[in-house]
Formats: sequence, structure tokens, C-alpha cells
Amino acid sequence: MTDAGPGMILTLNAGSSSLKFSVFEPGAEPRECAHGQVENIGGTAAELTLTEGTRKTRLGIGRAHHQSALQAILGQLAPLLKGRTIAGVGHRIVHGGTAHAAPEVLTPKVMAYLATLEPLAPLHQPHNLAAVRAAIAAFPGARQVGCFDTGFHRGHPWENDTFALPRRYYDKGVRRYGFHGLSYDYVSHELARTRPELAAGRVIIAHLGNGASMCALRNGNSIGSTMGFSALDGLPMGTRCGQLDPGVVLWLMQSEGMGAVEISNLLYRESGLKGLSGLSHDMRTLEAAGTPEAAQAIDYFVFRIRREIGAMTAILGGLDALVFCGGIGENSAMIRARLCEGMDWLGLTLDAAANEARAPEIGHGRVRVLVIPTDEERVIARAVNAALQVAG
Amino acid sequence: MTDAGPGMILTLNAGSSSLKFSVFEPGAEPRECAHGQVENIGGTAAELTLTEGTRKTRLGIGRAHHQSALQAILGQLAPLLKGRTIAGVGHRIVHGGTAHAAPEVLTPKVMAYLATLEPLAPLHQPHNLAAVRAAIAAFPGARQVGCFDTGFHRGHPWENDTFALPRRYYDKGVRRYGFHGLSYDYVSHELARTRPELAAGRVIIAHLGNGASMCALRNGNSIGSTMGFSALDGLPMGTRCGQLDPGVVLWLMQSEGMGAVEISNLLYRESGLKGLSGLSHDMRTLEAAGTPEAAQAIDYFVFRIRREIGAMTAILGGLDALVFCGGIGENSAMIRARLCEGMDWLGLTLDAAANEARAPEIGHGRVRVLVIPTDEERVIARAVNAALQVAG
Repeated sequence: MTDAGPGMILTLNAGSSSLKFSVFEPGAEPRECAHGQVENIGGTAAELTLTEGTRKTRLGIGRAHHQSALQAILGQLAPLLKGRTIAGVGHRIVHGGTAHAAPEVLTPKVMAYLATLEPLAPLHQPHNLAAVRAAIAAFPGARQVGCFDTGFHRGHPWENDTFALPRRYYDKGVRRYGFHGLSYDYVSHELARTRPELAAGRVIIAHLGNGASMCALRNGNSIGSTMGFSALDGLPMGTRCGQLDPGVVLWLMQSEGMGAVEISNLLYRESGLKGLSGLSHDMRTLEAAGTPEAAQAIDYFVFRIRREIGAMTAILGGLDALVFCGGIGENSAMIRARLCEGMDWLGLTLDAAANEARAPEIGHGRVRVLVIPTDEERVIARAVNAALQVAG
Repeated sequence: MTDAGPGMILTLNAGSSSLKFSVFEPGAEPRECAHGQVENIGGTAAELTLTEGTRKTRLGIGRAHHQSALQAILGQLAPLLKGRTIAGVGHRIVHGGTAHAAPEVLTPKVMAYLATLEPLAPLHQPHNLAAVRAAIAAFPGARQVGCFDTGFHRGHPWENDTFALPRRYYDKGVRRYGFHGLSYDYVSHELARTRPELAAGRVIIAHLGNGASMCALRNGNSIGSTMGFSALDGLPMGTRCGQLDPGVVLWLMQSEGMGAVEISNLLYRESGLKGLSGLSHDMRTLEAAGTPEAAQAIDYFVFRIRREIGAMTAILGGLDALVFCGGIGENSAMIRARLCEGMDWLGLTLDAAANEARAPEIGHGRVRVLVIPTDEERVIARAVNAALQVAG
């Protein structure tokens, strides 16, 4: 702790070509002071944006990797910190494997374990760990805390944790991990805080953003996720395919002569809404476009989510509440309306006016329908705050 | 037509290592005279079984391919035919592609098209076509009729016919074809014949055998199947994996260094109930075994089917009837009971006594629950009979 005040909390969320960050004032409920991101990391013209209250800064930082991106962020944050240190850095880490559910201080031992998980999430985990290493170099005195997107789902019953493969693959880590755990953590706690009677019941949370998945919760605990082993499975996403017959992958290998890197690129980066529309990964663009292909991409997105609402309801043995969050879930009244259309069989009826008005409750059937804006950064900041408390 | 009477109908159902057959007396409703199979084709000791009424014949025929197996079958059938010819041969053909839904006379042109579909079903289609060629050689004067397992599903709405891949793959034939169509054809027609009010509604047929899938029907028409592009997808099966995250296939390639043939072998032949139990692909063996692994394999089978009952219900917008067929669906009261347990949220309640008694109706909730024994051979024989009528 310096004279300037207690050390601040920095949260980092590193993707393959982006590094999102937030700065929080520590406290029982951390307060966000600023947030922003560096985009186009790995390209020739990375760009940093910083939002502090109503003030927005945007600047080009040239060619950048994760470490230089973090240096650029620190340069912009310096005036804001006013001499205060960073006491703790919280990291969103996609994979905690079987060993880590709760947030963990990132000791060399934990980092070594997390590195062994890279083959399970080759497009995310290496970037997450690169950001940790950059943060250790930048803040050698700060506590580094990892928050795992798989953690929220670690209590799945066995039959929803495995695939029907020879058992040795389960032991090797081929499991239905589920992701978006930080978002589900935030939203489920908000639900418990504001509507405890619902949180005690059977709930589906639909996290619909550029990545998308759904979580089935009983009494606040995840018992199922539409995502499985990788971040590819389940719902279609901006550029990811979602559910795919494994026979299609075999066909891509045998009939198209494609290798793992090509197939991975196809399924992670060229599929989903982008692949079906031939236009864009962005739902806002597709809603505005009005081309037949954009309409079909939206049809598919809606169809698959409706299908999985039925599947998650079956897992739960009925449904008490459906909660929307994520960029699309929070902002697209049209998508929410289409997802809830003709769901009377389930006791789910949309209140069209409330939906258009972006009200927090948008249903008037037996099954409650809610919109709860998610805040993954806050979940990370809380974990760092708790780790700082323990540290004294 | 010979003096001995009108020509008979032979049906053939060729797998990779088996050739099943039935002989039918032609007529508005064909009558089965005999059935049987050759097993272990491709091995050193193929075996032929023939059942004619209460009489069973079993004999070893040594090393056999599909053509010599068919010759062996003919040798056994000769006394039964009593000089009558085979007027038509009906073939179960796994893939009709986008061009064929209804049964087709297998002209050279149709055969050429069906051969182009081999990459879509590499483990089934080549054997199906080999059996056709063997039958043409054996019965040059007979009508050869193909009946397609994909045919029943060709009317799926677009959003349930595609995957979220770039659109060119749909055009190349990467679609959710669905299979077990001959079984669904038979069972849905039985339902329409015996309970027309149900057949007009929202129905799920669960074909649960060594292969397993479910079909969602509205007014007798398939609008969805748990199987997709290949016979791998959807429900777990005797040795097939069912639903699998495509990321697992990528991991098998990248981390395990496996190629397409190895992965194909793993997913088609070593997974499913066999892989999870480490014991057997056969549900009867698993029910009797009582090992923890066998119990877990059954748990997984039940869990995934229950999940997909929810998904199919969502596609249908509610449910009026659930129909079981196939070896497991028709014979395992335990599996049916576990599938229907705690489904009150759906209006589905099992009548335990009726289920144990193997009654045709086994539910007493709003959603009717039925068992209808399937008969794929009869569907083929009917198609051949119709083709013979047209031919005059």
C-alpha cells in the first residue's frame, strides 16, 4: 500500500487478437474506474481504447503483442492511477481443467498446470497465459489471480460431463467442461440477490454474444451447458459453428483433404452467423441487412437456441425462469421475441411491450423471463479483492 | 411370371459385415415367408441363418463377400421358392442424397448417382451398392428397388437441414439428412392406421436399437431427426458415439496424432455403450452385468435420450405422443421406464404396470406413450410390390 491510497485492481481478458482491461477500486463491492481494450494484436496496427466515465480515448499503437499491448495500457492508465499501485491483477482464463474451479492465485505451480491444458483450448489458453506472464513482468509485486470460465460447471453430474467414447478419453480430460462461467457466476448471483425464490428453482441462463452458450441451473448450481469440451460446441456463434456432426469433420478430412489447422480455422473463424450469412458475424449487421442469407443465418441461430431450451428444460425436469444476457441477449428485442414465440407449451409467454421497452422482466407466463446484463469483469475484480483480503 | 406362381419379393439389408434378407409373397400387403442373415462377411467363417416359420437353419459358409453370401442365401432359399422366381429385390440403401426421397428402381443412372454419395456414408453406402450389384448378377430379370433411409426426412425445414458452416458446404451436400427412415415410415403409418388422431399431432418416434435416433413428426411428416449428416450424430449407440463436440475430433488429430481412418474406427466401432461400459455394445448384456461401468453407460444413454426428447419437443412446439420402437425400445421395460421418469413437466407419465406387461400403450398422462414394433423389411417389400404393379 502506498501513501497515495490502497492498491488498485486490474482485470485482464486476453483473446487471440485483443486484450480487454478494467480498473477497479478495491472494496467489498469493487467500483470500476475505467475500462478499455487493445484490438488487432498481432496485426500491424493495434488500437487502444480507454473509457473513463464519459471520456473516451482512442489511439493507434502500431505493431503489438500482448506484452507491448499491456505496456501501452499502463501508459494510458498512469494519470488515472495518480501514483497508486496495482495491488492485484485478475485474469479471465478459459480453462481451469479438472483441478481448478474457484479462482486461484497464479503461482508458478498453478501456471505450469494451466500450461498443460493448452491442447484443450489451443485458441484461447495460450493467449490467456501470455497475458499473465506479461502482467507478472509489469507488476512483480501484485497478486495475480486466475478466474476460470470452466469453473462454474465443475459440478456437472457424470453423465453430463462425459462423451460416449472409450473411458480412457474421459481420464485424459475429454469432458464437457462448459464455458462462459464468469458470466453465469455474475448473472446467477444477481438472480439470487434480486429474486431468490427463482434462483432456488430451475433456471436457464442464455449467454448470447459473439460467443454463445446456455447453462442449466438448479438451485444456483450448473448441471449442464450447451458448450462441451471446446468453445465450438452447442449454439451457433458469430464465427463458430456450434453443434456439428463429427462425421462432418471426418468428411472434411477425407473428401476435402483438410488438415487440423484448416478445419480448426473453418470451424472457429469462418462458420456460425458469418458462414451462413456470407456477410458478417455481427447480429446487428445481420438484423439491418435484410438479405435472404442474413435472414437464414438468424433463423438458424433462433432455431438452435429454441431446440436447446427444450433440451436444457429436460435436463432440469421443467423450467421456472429463462434469463437472457450477453450482447445479443441484452440488446436484441427481436431475437428475444423470436426465441420466446410459440413456447406456450412450456408455460413461457413473452410480454411484447416489456420486451420492446427493455424491461428487466419480459414474460407474463408461469415461466419467468428476465434480462440481466452480465459483468464478467466484476466477477474477476471480486475474486481479486477476496484474494487481497486473504493476503492481508 | 412362371407357372409356379407369381414371382416373389426378396429384401436385402447389407451392412459392412452382414447381409440380412427376407422373402415376401407379393400382394397389396406382402406376406413374409422367411427371413435370415449372413454374418461375419469379410471374415474367415461367415455364418448363414434362415428362419422359416418355426424352422431355423444355421450353417457355416466359410470365407464370404457380399456376392458369395447372396449365392449361399439363394442356395438355402431354392427349396422354399419351389420353382418360383424372384420378381423384385428391395434394397435398404442408407443414402439417397438430395435427389431421392421415394423408393426408386435402381437403373444404371440411379446407381451412378448413389455411388457419388459414398463419401457421405463411407461405412454403409459401398456395402449397400455391392449388394445391389450382387443381386443384379443373381437376378438379371428382377426389378431392383432402392429404399432410402434418408428419404423420410427430406422435407426438413432449411434451418434443420443445415449446419452453421459457410454456405458452400450445404451446396456440397453437408446437410442433416437423418436416417432410420424406413423404420419411421413403418411406425408412423402404423400410428396413422391405429390412432389417426395422434398421428395428426406432434409425435416423437424413438428408434432405439444398436443404431439409435429420434424423429420429430408433425402430421406424419418428419421435421427433425437427432441424426445429422452421418450415422454418428445424435443419440449414443451400441458402438457409435452420438453427439460429439467437433473440438474433440480436432483434439484427436492434434494431440493424439490420429488420422481419419483411426478416428472413424474409434467413433463408429469403439464408442457408445461399448466404449463407456468397456464391456459390450449390447444393452441386454449391460442390463445383466451390474458393473459400475455398465450402469454408467446406461445412465449416459438414458440422459442423452431424455435431453433430446426435450429438444425434439421444442422443435414440435409441444408433444402429443412418444412412440418407442427398435430392439431396445420394444424390449427394455427398464430403459422405457427410466426415459419417462420425472417427465411430468411435459405431461408425460408412465403406467408402470402396462410398461412391464409390454402393452402397446404404456402412459397415462396427457402425452400418450406407445410401443410400436418396427418392420423395415415390410416397408421395402411394399415398395417393391408397388414397383412391380407399375411395371405390370
